[in-house]
Amino acid sequence: MIAIYPGSFDPITLGHLDIITRGGQLFERVIVTVSCNPNKNPLFPVEKRVEQIRQCTQHLTNVEVDSFTGLTVEYAKLRKANVLLRGLRVLSDFEKELQMAHTNVTLWDGIETVFLATAKEYSFLSSSIVKEIAKFGGSVSHLVPENVARDIALYYS
Amino acid sequence: MIAIYPGSFDPITLGHLDIITRGGQLFERVIVTVSCNPNKNPLFPVEKRVEQIRQCTQHLTNVEVDSFTGLTVEYAKLRKANVLLRGLRVLSDFEKELQMAHTNVTLWDGIETVFLATAKEYSFLSSSIVKEIAKFGGSVSHLVPENVARDIALYYS
Amino acid sequence: MIAIYPGSFDPITLGHLDIITRGGQLFERVIVTVSCNPNKNPLFPVEKRVEQIRQCTQHLTNVEVDSFTGLTVEYAKLRKANVLLRGLRVLSDFEKELQMAHTNVTLWDGIETVFLATAKEYSFLSSSIVKEIAKFGGSVSHLVPENVARDIALYYS
Amino acid sequence: MIAIYPGSFDPITLGHLDIITRGGQLFERVIVTVSCNPNKNPLFPVEKRVEQIRQCTQHLTNVEVDSFTGLTVEYAKLRKANVLLRGLRVLSDFEKELQMAHTNVTLWDGIETVFLATAKEYSFLSSSIVKEIAKFGGSVSHLVPENVARDIALYYS
Amino acid sequence: MIAIYPGSFDPITLGHLDIITRGGQLFERVIVTVSCNPNKNPLFPVEKRVEQIRQCTQHLTNVEVDSFTGLTVEYAKLRKANVLLRGLRVLSDFEKELQMAHTNVTLWDGIETVFLATAKEYSFLSSSIVKEIAKFGGSVSHLVPENVARDIALYYS
Amino acid sequence: MIAIYPGSFDPITLGHLDIITRGGQLFERVIVTVSCNPNKNPLFPVEKRVEQIRQCTQHLTNVEVDSFTGLTVEYAKLRKANVLLRGLRVLSDFEKELQMAHTNVTLWDGIETVFLATAKEYSFLSSSIVKEIAKFGGSVSHLVPENVARDIALYYS
Repeated sequence: MIAIYPGSFDPITLGHLDIITRGGQLFERVIVTVSCNPNKNPLFPVEKRVEQIRQCTQHLTNVEVDSFTGLTVEYAKLRKANVLLRGLRVLSDFEKELQMAHTNVTLWDGIETVFLATAKEYSFLSSSIVKEIAKFGGSVSHLVPENVARDIALYYS
Repeated sequence: MIAIYPGSFDPITLGHLDIITRGGQLFERVIVTVSCNPNKNPLFPVEKRVEQIRQCTQHLTNVEVDSFTGLTVEYAKLRKANVLLRGLRVLSDFEKELQMAHTNVTLWDGIETVFLATAKEYSFLSSSIVKEIAKFGGSVSHLVPENVARDIALYYS
Repeated sequence: MIAIYPGSFDPITLGHLDIITRGGQLFERVIVTVSCNPNKNPLFPVEKRVEQIRQCTQHLTNVEVDSFTGLTVEYAKLRKANVLLRGLRVLSDFEKELQMAHTNVTLWDGIETVFLATAKEYSFLSSSIVKEIAKFGGSVSHLVPENVARDIALYYS
Repeated sequence: MIAIYPGSFDPITLGHLDIITRGGQLFERVIVTVSCNPNKNPLFPVEKRVEQIRQCTQHLTNVEVDSFTGLTVEYAKLRKANVLLRGLRVLSDFEKELQMAHTNVTLWDGIETVFLATAKEYSFLSSSIVKEIAKFGGSVSHLVPENVARDIALYYS
Repeated sequence: MIAIYPGSFDPITLGHLDIITRGGQLFERVIVTVSCNPNKNPLFPVEKRVEQIRQCTQHLTNVEVDSFTGLTVEYAKLRKANVLLRGLRVLSDFEKELQMAHTNVTLWDGIETVFLATAKEYSFLSSSIVKEIAKFGGSVSHLVPENVARDIALYYS
Repeated sequence: MIAIYPGSFDPITLGHLDIITRGGQLFERVIVTVSCNPNKNPLFPVEKRVEQIRQCTQHLTNVEVDSFTGLTVEYAKLRKANVLLRGLRVLSDFEKELQMAHTNVTLWDGIETVFLATAKEYSFLSSSIVKEIAKFGGSVSHLVPENVARDIALYYS
């Protein structure tokens, strides 16, 4: 069974990496896919984010990294994937994720959303928090993969 | 008793229509009113939204459609309405709606906010989700009234 | 339109009285009805609770007080009432009340649940809190109607 | 990969059955297991609940039904299962389920909890609600599998 | 300033100990007080719980351990304490704690409730979870102070 | 012990003032500090906000008003403050505040976040609501300090 793990990953955090690792133990193949949202003003361009995720997941043999524009369910159909993988941290996640899961089923009933609870140590971590800290010169090396910490340090230097 | 059902309705969804229909059974008259928020960047202009709601509510004889700029309670006073009608779907609704209801009472103690639980089948539906799907070419005909689905198809064609 | 306001009311609080008063302004008639739950171990017997509510609502001419055993929707049918009136205070209320509202509709689609936000000053008040305070000799006269405060003082004296 | 779906199932609802069915499409094998909690006062004894679940899942070839006493993770180890399957309906579920998932990992780090969102039509359904309705003579045939509806009708007749 | 940290502590967990330690750094003196609730059926008697807390807090020189029956605010008055110290873990805590804080102020306006966020590693830990695990023979030595782990092992042996 | 009360205060509300007043009773010194967020588009410039807060807190002898750019924990270190003071109103506050508190500890373990429950009468009040009302000409004199109400009246006149 193939699972898609879609997200902005701007940037990927240790919380995301934890979900990818655990997803890789559940499913035959996990496709991490960076969704291109033209409205957002990202820190890193899509290509860079794909590269960042590739670097920090290269030890995971059944994990592939990609990007897409459009509806997640259409991408899932294309990749012959029946599972969307999502992490749950906090309440507002829960609500929004449930909304997405129920909506996606109305768009394609062949899709199943599987939720994993983000590990306790990352349950209050988000890409936004990382950017907020980095913007003011704080260290984020305990929050993101090593290669991403380097990219962030360069970006704000 | 006259009830005001204020909102952005950008666009009206089947969830909104459900609340309007049920509100029409509770109150003598329901005035659906499109609030004009100059800060937002809407999909459809206010006039179009008023027209869309009129079309899909024309079978409801005690429902009127209007638009307004300003404080909801001022509009309610003007229309001699003592009730604000609101749908509740999820938690973040609940919190924000409670905040609005308590604030409105401090502005005019003649106003009462009446909440209805959005029907289960629409409890995860929002105008934002509709736009998100439509933007990427997904079908929204199961989420909005027929006339709105046509307008959306035209808009994105 | 007739509204039923069902509850345990063990005892009725100023929060309940606020909902009854505001409900009486919305609906032609409000029937406050004490639900008899054989499993619970109440502070006051059903008859006493009915009497307490009658005393503190006697100035409200369109409010009637009753009691019932069974499904709320069956009682509503019997009383030709199409509305259930409920107060919303906090999140756990919201969740449980939504569950009840959706369940009641599956039992009788002629029923509509109407929610009012409990007034801010009573939004953290419950019958349980009242009993918790009274049990340890604290004063509850600012939390319940005057006649109920007297009954509670007698009970614990 | 083998998944355990633990619960009280007193009684199994259509919401549970939905999770079992979808879990059966995700995992090689799903073991539905009735947890025996000596403190609770159940409607049906454990053996009856096992039989009820067997009857309504007999068309699902990779679903097995069992019961156990003790820690869920110990049972999972015994059955060589690395996944706990859980349904998420509402907020209080979410909180309690997250607590259980995090606690289970501290007891055995070989366990992964996988959450599925309960289908919208059952998102307000619980075994407690079923019993509450049945106790007062209401019909629950739209809430539980057919065989369970018969057992409940017999029980309360 | 003297702070009261009231609770059931049945048994004290590492989460409680974390709050006590941090409270001791904020306030001149912290009085940990075991509330005697005659309705509950505790694992350990009050005296034992006081002793358990004394043992694991003996290195904290400004922490005192006591017990009381009655309203928390009355106990606070007696001890000339103006602060109640409380830990916040999850949502249901938040709601209940807010309710208690607002109620306590209506009973004595000289009381202030100060909340600390339970450390991440204990944010899903509760006395109930500890008892649930211990009851089925699981190890709780990573969840409670050492001396309590020994008492629990003895209790269930 | 010195406490920092950081925020946007755009504008300060009676809810903020309540937290400052109560914080001043708990801590030796409270430094209210306006955080300068270059991304936001504020109603009043930082200097004006500092002046507004100074005016309405001048009767509080241990309260100081300041502003800063950067990470809150860095500012706290600079001011030799070990406490961050925060008000809790509603659920979404709770979630975001917990996230900030846990993140701040990862940046500097010498910082403690202390939460106070916003008084009931202000528990649904926010700077955004104030601006929303003022924008449409509604009176906000019951929601903000007198001097701020005058500034707002001038701004929108």
